[in-house]
Amino acid sequence: MKKHYVICYDISDDRKRNKIDQLLKNKGMRVQKSVFECIITEAEFLKLKDRLVKYIDFDTDSIRYYFLCKHCVEMIETAGNTPTHEEKDLTII
Amino acid sequence: MKKHYVICYDISDDRKRNKIDQLLKNKGMRVQKSVFECIITEAEFLKLKDRLVKYIDFDTDSIRYYFLCKHCVEMIETAGNTPTHEEKDLTII
Repeated sequence: MKKHYVICYDISDDRKRNKIDQLLKNKGMRVQKSVFECIITEAEFLKLKDRLVKYIDFDTDSIRYYFLCKHCVEMIETAGNTPTHEEKDLTII
Repeated sequence: MKKHYVICYDISDDRKRNKIDQLLKNKGMRVQKSVFECIITEAEFLKLKDRLVKYIDFDTDSIRYYFLCKHCVEMIETAGNTPTHEEKDLTII
């Protein structure tokens, strides 16, 4: 079963940021420069976190993970030029 | 009753971004360069959105609003150098 995660980052090093972008692009959609939304299983999420953490400088960088339940996904609002999901194969609790 | 909102933005114009920062700082806490968490009432949220939208260039800029219910707030995870809330006067549904 897939779940909806919002992942935001502040990464100072360009090379590391590119690597993190790549990992997130493989698992989700970029919705802002440093914000991705991933609709993935919990197992995929745990694995993704493990891989992302290797690229973080714990003094300067940060990643925030927000899980959104079905209700909170329905409450997402946007203003301006921002992509939205086509919920293809999506089952959210 | 206060609710937990995550507000992320991509704003190209420096002056507008500063103004948006100011509005968000008045209502919440910066948790990343372009991500704020606001624990505010729904009325305050509606007013904040109305004020923020004035500063958006709908071609280049974007703001995303995520409401987090109590469960989703408890699921917030972070890695690296990132502030956390002290839930002072906080009641979340």
